[in-house]
Amino acid sequence: MTKTITLAHGNGGVENSELIKEVFYKAFKNEILEKSEDAAVIQNGTLAFSTDSFTVTPLFFNGANIGKLAICGTCNDLAMMGAKPKYLTCSVIIEEGFEVEQLEIIVNSMKEELAKNEAIIVSGDTKVVPKGAVDKIFINTTGIGEVLYSGISSNNITQDDLILVSRDIGAHGATIFTAREGIDMNSNLKSDCSSLYPLVKALIDANIKITALRDATRGGVSAVLNEWAKQSNICIEVEEEQIPISDEVKGICEMLGFEATNLANEGTFLLAISKDDATKAIEVLHTFPEASNASIIGKVTSQYPQKVILNSSWGTKRFLDTPTGELLPRIC
Amino acid sequence: MTKTITLAHGNGGVENSELIKEVFYKAFKNEILEKSEDAAVIQNGTLAFSTDSFTVTPLFFNGANIGKLAICGTCNDLAMMGAKPKYLTCSVIIEEGFEVEQLEIIVNSMKEELAKNEAIIVSGDTKVVPKGAVDKIFINTTGIGEVLYSGISSNNITQDDLILVSRDIGAHGATIFTAREGIDMNSNLKSDCSSLYPLVKALIDANIKITALRDATRGGVSAVLNEWAKQSNICIEVEEEQIPISDEVKGICEMLGFEATNLANEGTFLLAISKDDATKAIEVLHTFPEASNASIIGKVTSQYPQKVILNSSWGTKRFLDTPTGELLPRIC
Repeated sequence: MTKTITLAHGNGGVENSELIKEVFYKAFKNEILEKSEDAAVIQNGTLAFSTDSFTVTPLFFNGANIGKLAICGTCNDLAMMGAKPKYLTCSVIIEEGFEVEQLEIIVNSMKEELAKNEAIIVSGDTKVVPKGAVDKIFINTTGIGEVLYSGISSNNITQDDLILVSRDIGAHGATIFTAREGIDMNSNLKSDCSSLYPLVKALIDANIKITALRDATRGGVSAVLNEWAKQSNICIEVEEEQIPISDEVKGICEMLGFEATNLANEGTFLLAISKDDATKAIEVLHTFPEASNASIIGKVTSQYPQKVILNSSWGTKRFLDTPTGELLPRIC
Repeated sequence: MTKTITLAHGNGGVENSELIKEVFYKAFKNEILEKSEDAAVIQNGTLAFSTDSFTVTPLFFNGANIGKLAICGTCNDLAMMGAKPKYLTCSVIIEEGFEVEQLEIIVNSMKEELAKNEAIIVSGDTKVVPKGAVDKIFINTTGIGEVLYSGISSNNITQDDLILVSRDIGAHGATIFTAREGIDMNSNLKSDCSSLYPLVKALIDANIKITALRDATRGGVSAVLNEWAKQSNICIEVEEEQIPISDEVKGICEMLGFEATNLANEGTFLLAISKDDATKAIEVLHTFPEASNASIIGKVTSQYPQKVILNSSWGTKRFLDTPTGELLPRIC
């Protein structure tokens, strides 16, 4: 039987990671790529370099649109490597018939978000394809950042670190889901989509010892924790009670049977911080309104290497696995 | 009436350039972007940075496929700024149901072409979208190159320069057209798709004084000559007889009423070279089989600033204009 690509191959979870390893890493094999960081670190550690293509639907949703998302997504990947976003490229593929006014709104959102990162677009590409060849508009942004804090790596987490989350989780995935399904929650639910560089900058300025940072996009918090457990060959043990989840996201999860830990985020990151500095890191994060419920959610042990354990609010223990299967596609 | 995006907005010609200026440059306004070079030059002139999204159809065609094209396209843009391609990102958007085997062929072509540029992929992104959201596969590549030769710019061409072309023109556009229309030319027609870095490196090593380089992709030779005439505020006068065109491309143009100068290329570039070095540059180019008919095709005058004049083989003179309207979409 012919093997074909399935939606699960793009889920940010198990199948996605297999495709990347078996097809892309296999052909493009090199040390930098195989580090599997949010951004590649190049030029003797001075620059970070990262790419993302955005295919989100709907294009406009509560809290953001594809343009804001395209800037946040790439700038956040740079920030997660301790880098200051500096130069971006912007490549758009537009479907014939798309309204110029909509394009202008999207591009202006990009402009606003670039300012928050003090970054600029220096090069671009514009393709227009016939009706049916693309669903409305896809945007690729690729960015170069200047590394301000070296040595951040998902491969170096140890038992000296604690695990933190910057805010309540799952808002982006829940927002896209309700927008797409036409569910009117009559609530304050909105995407967490935002630029994380200012928060990272504040942590660096406060001399926090940072081991690893990763924004919990596709595959959510579960995917990141499992990637870290594997990459650093550690066991991560998290306390369900400590993971902040808004009432809105809780409601959606209960109604639809989702796990908030699997839902995508676009302005929420996990931190592995040296034990000595974890409380101070939380204090720094709390100075930002968007991170007002940042929490220490777990610790590192050697119990089950490469596994993530969730201590539930009910006092039970279970493995928190990497999401599999067809998670909601086109959330970013 | 609501203004919408048309295929002409992506033609590499007049409408494309208007969209870029009126929407993207307007919002993203900065000096580097407004230079409108093939690649942005950043970090005090040491690095070049360029992006391209590839939407070509069919995915496989005589002489290349979308994978090879995606590496050549971005590496060539870097080479056109005198830079050695070094680090690339690769972001793919795949339609659910796409065959894994086809993906592997594409990725392996990318690998082969990367080797010719001595470049590596250091970061990537893989999205899978439901059927109908994208036509098979789109690939974005964004590259960083190390500037080996500074000062190349489409804004600095003067009457001290001659205008050269690296080979016979129009092969890529003609190949895609015949492949798409199912025209069997029973001929040797194949895309010129290839990596130009080795040729540029040879010119630099031979101490050729280079003013400007630009690969003649969408909009073909006509678009590049007109961009140069405008950007450098000069008149370019080219001799039709000196522009190499293969018999196959000539045949297609005669049959279908195309102008070879408007057809896209993917491994053919124009050079503005100091008069003293033009003959030597041709000698260097001739050492490459793919550039065996490189020619000096024109000169710079002050007669009609910002215009391109074509002296036809029949002894008549006419303006060679920037292409307009719906040129063949999805040629790259």
